[in-house]
Amino acid sequence: MNKLVIAPANSLIVQSKESKKRLLPVNGDGFGVGWYPLHDDPEPARIVSIEPAWSNQNLIQLTSKVSSEHFFAHVRDASKGMPVSQSNCHPFTSGRYMFMHNGRLDQFTKFKRNILNGLSDKAFNLIKGNTDSEYAFALFMDVINFAENLSPEQLKQGLYETIKRIVAYRVEVGANTNAFINFAVSDGSTIVATRFATDQHKQPASLFYCKGCFEYDHNKDDILVEHGIGNNVIICSEPLSETSHGWQKVERNHAVIVHENNNVSVEKIPIPYQS
Amino acid sequence: MNKLVIAPANSLIVQSKESKKRLLPVNGDGFGVGWYPLHDDPEPARIVSIEPAWSNQNLIQLTSKVSSEHFFAHVRDASKGMPVSQSNCHPFTSGRYMFMHNGRLDQFTKFKRNILNGLSDKAFNLIKGNTDSEYAFALFMDVINFAENLSPEQLKQGLYETIKRIVAYRVEVGANTNAFINFAVSDGSTIVATRFATDQHKQPASLFYCKGCFEYDHNKDDILVEHGIGNNVIICSEPLSETSHGWQKVERNHAVIVHENNNVSVEKIPIPYQS
Amino acid sequence: MNKLVIAPANSLIVQSKESKKRLLPVNGDGFGVGWYPLHDDPEPARIVSIEPAWSNQNLIQLTSKVSSEHFFAHVRDASKGMPVSQSNCHPFTSGRYMFMHNGRLDQFTKFKRNILNGLSDKAFNLIKGNTDSEYAFALFMDVINFAENLSPEQLKQGLYETIKRIVAYRVEVGANTNAFINFAVSDGSTIVATRFATDQHKQPASLFYCKGCFEYDHNKDDILVEHGIGNNVIICSEPLSETSHGWQKVERNHAVIVHENNNVSVEKIPIPYQS
Amino acid sequence: MNKLVIAPANSLIVQSKESKKRLLPVNGDGFGVGWYPLHDDPEPARIVSIEPAWSNQNLIQLTSKVSSEHFFAHVRDASKGMPVSQSNCHPFTSGRYMFMHNGRLDQFTKFKRNILNGLSDKAFNLIKGNTDSEYAFALFMDVINFAENLSPEQLKQGLYETIKRIVAYRVEVGANTNAFINFAVSDGSTIVATRFATDQHKQPASLFYCKGCFEYDHNKDDILVEHGIGNNVIICSEPLSETSHGWQKVERNHAVIVHENNNVSVEKIPIPYQS
Repeated sequence: MNKLVIAPANSLIVQSKESKKRLLPVNGDGFGVGWYPLHDDPEPARIVSIEPAWSNQNLIQLTSKVSSEHFFAHVRDASKGMPVSQSNCHPFTSGRYMFMHNGRLDQFTKFKRNILNGLSDKAFNLIKGNTDSEYAFALFMDVINFAENLSPEQLKQGLYETIKRIVAYRVEVGANTNAFINFAVSDGSTIVATRFATDQHKQPASLFYCKGCFEYDHNKDDILVEHGIGNNVIICSEPLSETSHGWQKVERNHAVIVHENNNVSVEKIPIPYQS
Repeated sequence: MNKLVIAPANSLIVQSKESKKRLLPVNGDGFGVGWYPLHDDPEPARIVSIEPAWSNQNLIQLTSKVSSEHFFAHVRDASKGMPVSQSNCHPFTSGRYMFMHNGRLDQFTKFKRNILNGLSDKAFNLIKGNTDSEYAFALFMDVINFAENLSPEQLKQGLYETIKRIVAYRVEVGANTNAFINFAVSDGSTIVATRFATDQHKQPASLFYCKGCFEYDHNKDDILVEHGIGNNVIICSEPLSETSHGWQKVERNHAVIVHENNNVSVEKIPIPYQS
Repeated sequence: MNKLVIAPANSLIVQSKESKKRLLPVNGDGFGVGWYPLHDDPEPARIVSIEPAWSNQNLIQLTSKVSSEHFFAHVRDASKGMPVSQSNCHPFTSGRYMFMHNGRLDQFTKFKRNILNGLSDKAFNLIKGNTDSEYAFALFMDVINFAENLSPEQLKQGLYETIKRIVAYRVEVGANTNAFINFAVSDGSTIVATRFATDQHKQPASLFYCKGCFEYDHNKDDILVEHGIGNNVIICSEPLSETSHGWQKVERNHAVIVHENNNVSVEKIPIPYQS
Repeated sequence: MNKLVIAPANSLIVQSKESKKRLLPVNGDGFGVGWYPLHDDPEPARIVSIEPAWSNQNLIQLTSKVSSEHFFAHVRDASKGMPVSQSNCHPFTSGRYMFMHNGRLDQFTKFKRNILNGLSDKAFNLIKGNTDSEYAFALFMDVINFAENLSPEQLKQGLYETIKRIVAYRVEVGANTNAFINFAVSDGSTIVATRFATDQHKQPASLFYCKGCFEYDHNKDDILVEHGIGNNVIICSEPLSETSHGWQKVERNHAVIVHENNNVSVEKIPIPYQS
C-alpha cells in the first residue's frame, strides 16, 4: 500500500497537511486504512487513529509492510463540532463492506434523529460515533438489508438508494443547503464511488480515477502512471502524482464503478438535484 | 485539588490502577476532572483524557495548580464494547450542571433507543458519545427542563425522577438484571450522590463520604481526616485514606446530599426495587 | 486566557491550522499552555497534548476557566523526524522557569551529543524528550546554574549566553546553515523573547508584541487593542488581531524584555552572526 | 497472530489488565506488535500505541487480519518517571532486528550517560525515546556493529555481550540493586530470549516457552497445546493457556534459542552475577 499511500508526490499523507483541492488544506483529524487481506478472508481490516496522518509512523509501517490488492485510505477534517475520536474515523466496516465519505451532509443535526428513527436495531447498533458519514453507512447497511452477497448492480443501486433516502430526509426537514456526497463503498470485489452534490449551484468535492500500471519513479520523486498498460485502478479525491496525465476527472453527480476484473465504468447518478 | 486527587494513600490515581472495592482493580480507560472556578463563573470547567490517570502529568499539573472548592474527579473503566473516547469521559457538563456515574445500566442496548426517543431535541443534541452514563445525564437535563436555578430539593428530586424513568424504560423492555446507579450531580452549590441498585439481591457499587478538615500527613504519606473539625466534604467510591476512621459508608439505595454550607444529609431513595 | 488564546481573529488555535507567517500554515503536532497561578505559587503549571490545538475541547476549557496574568501558549509543528510526544511539547518548565522555542536549530543531530556532553547531570536529567528546543532549555538551566532568583538582567544575559553556546557548538561541528532562535523564557516576573537568526542572509521567524488593553470586540469578531491605555503585554509570532495597528514588529536579532511592571524594552542582541 | 495475541485465556490483552506473574497486574502504558512479513521482506513491521492493549480495536484488527509466522508482541508497564510515548513502546527495530525487554535496569539514571557516551553516532541516533530498554537495544546494535547477516551463534553472543556491557556499566557506577534483564531479540530467523537477574538473591521476571501445535479450543475458551505434534514455538512471560501442561519454565539466568527450523535449545547464560 506504501506505493500509493505514502510514496506519491501528492500522497495521502501530503494531502493530510497540504491538500490541493480544498479551501483549507488540512485534514489532520485522524486517518484510517481499511484493506481486504490477501489470504482467504472476505472481511476487511480497519486501522484508525485520531493522530494526524502526516507524522504517523504506524501508518508508514502499516502501508509499507502489509500487502493488499484492494484497500481504502482516508484522512479526516472533522466538521465543526464533530468530536475527533476513533469511532468517527473512516472507513467504516460491517461484515464484508467498507465505506467512506468525503464531504458533509449539511444541516445534519436537523435530520439526524429522522435517520436514527428509521434504522433497524441492527443498523442502529452499528453506530459507535456520531458523524453524518457513519449514519449514512448505517443507512446503507439497512438499504441492502445486511445482505452478504450482492451483485455489482445491487451494490451500486444500494448506494444510490442510500443517497435518495438522505435527500428525502433532508427535504422532510427543510435542509436546503448543499450536501456533499462523495461516498465510496466496497464489498471486496466491486467498488462504487460517487461525486454528488444536492444543490445544482454548488460543486461537489473533487474526484478522480486512474487506471494503469503504477510505478514509483525515484528520479522524479513521483508516481508514474503508464495508462493503457497494467490493470490497477486508483480512485482519489486528488491526483496522487503531479503530472496530471492519466487521471480522469469524474463529472459532478456521476459514479465510478470498478468491477472485479478492474474494468471501470462511469455513469450519471439517476437522482435529481434537491434544489 | 492535588490534596485530594493525587496525594492521598488511596487517591484517585491509585484507584485508577489498584482500586480496592471492585472485582477488577483497573480504571484505565481515561479520566476527567470538572471543577467550579473560584472566580465568578457559574459553569464548571471540564478536562478529560483517554489516557490512564496513573501516569498522567497533565492530571498532576492540573490538580496541583488549579484551585477549586467544588470539583468532581472520575476514572473510567469502560463497559465492554463501549468505545474509549473523550466524549465518553466523565464528568458530563451542561450549563451549570456537572454529572458523573459509577456503575453500569445493564442491558443498555435494549433501552438505548427508548431513552433517545423520549429526549427533547436539546437533550438529544447534548449527547456526543454513546455511554449509558451520558444518556442518563441527557435524561436528567430533560427532567429538570434545563432550568438554571433549582432549589436543592428540586435538584435531588430531578435526580430521583431520572432514576425512576430509567427503571421504567428498563421494565418496558424487560431488562431485569441489576442496574448500578451511583450518580453524582452538582449545580455548583448542592451535590446529590446516589448509591442505588435496581435488583434487591445485588449490591450497588460502594460509596463513602467524610466531613472534616483534610490535611495531608507527610509522615504517614496519607490524608489525615480530623472529623468534627473543619467543614469540607468528600464523597468517593472508596475511602481515600488507609485509616478508615472518619469515613461514613452510604447504605444501599440511599443518597448523600451536600448543601451549600457543607451540611450533609443522607436519606433513603424513595424508589422501589425493580425486581 | 481565553481572551487571548481562543477568541482573537488570528488566535493560537487559528494559527495551529492557518498561520499567516510561515511557508506551511500548519502547527498540528500538539500544543502546550504554561501559566503562573494567581495564588501564591512561584512555579508554573504546564498542560500539553499531542493533539492538534484547533479541535481541542480541553484547550478551550482550560483557557476559558483558568485565570492567569502571566502565561505561555504554543502550537507545534514538529521538525522532520522529531517524534510527536508530550515530552516534546512546549513550554518546558523547571522550577520557576518556563521556556519555549519557535524555530529550529538546523543540523541539530550534528551537535546534539556536544550539548549533551556539556550538560551537568541535573540538566541532563531534565531532558525527557529529544528536541533541539528542550536541549536548549537544559542548556539555559545550566547557564543560570538552576538559580532561583535572578535579576531581570541576569535572566536576559542567561538567555543570551545560551544562544552564544549554541552558536559555539554549531561552529565546532561546522553546522553553517541558519538556526532559527526565537526563544521565550520567563521566571514568573520577567519575560525575555528573542528573534534571532545565525545566518545574516536568512530571516528569523516573525515576532511581534503589543501593549495595551485587550478587549474582545464581538461585533468585529476580533481582539481590540487600545494601545496607550491599559497595561497588558502580548508577545506572539503573529499579530492576534486582523487589524494590525498596535502591533510592533520586533526587528531581527533583537530581544523584547517585559518587566514586572509590564514595561517593555527592546534591544539588539549582542551576538554576532555565525556566518 | 490473533490466535496467540487475542484469543488465549491468558492472552496478551488479558495480561495487559490482569497479568498473573507480577506484583501489580497492570501493563497499561501502551503496547507494540512487530512482525516479519510473509512476503519477501527481511525487515520487520512495527505498530505501537500508547493506549492500553485491553480495549484496543486496532490491535484486534491487526492481529486478526495480518498473518505472520514470526512476531513479537509487548504490553508495557512504564517504570516510574519514564514517559508514556510511542517512542518508548517495544519492540524496537533497526534493519532486520527486533528487540524487546521485560524488566528494568535498576538505577538506570546512574549509568545512562555512560551508555550514551559509549555509543557510536549511528547507535546514538537510533534512540528516539528515553527508556533503559531502548538504550540496551542501541548498545546491542553497536555490539553487533549493525551487521546484517549474523549466524545464530553470533546473534546469541551479541546479546550476551550486551548484557555483559550493561553489567560493566553498572559496576562502574555502583548500581548494585537487581537489574531485570529479560531480553528478546530476533533477526527474522533466530530468536534469543533471556531470563536474567544480576543479583543472585533476586528472581528475574518469569519466562516460559512452549512448542507444539496451537489450536484455539472454543469449548474451553482456551488455547490447546498439543506438544510433540506440530512445530510452532511460543516464548512468553506467562503461559497463555490456563492448562499449564506443555509450558516449559525457563530457569533463571538461562536463555532460550529458537532456530530457523523451530528447534529450541536452552542454555545457561555464561555471565556471573553482579553481586
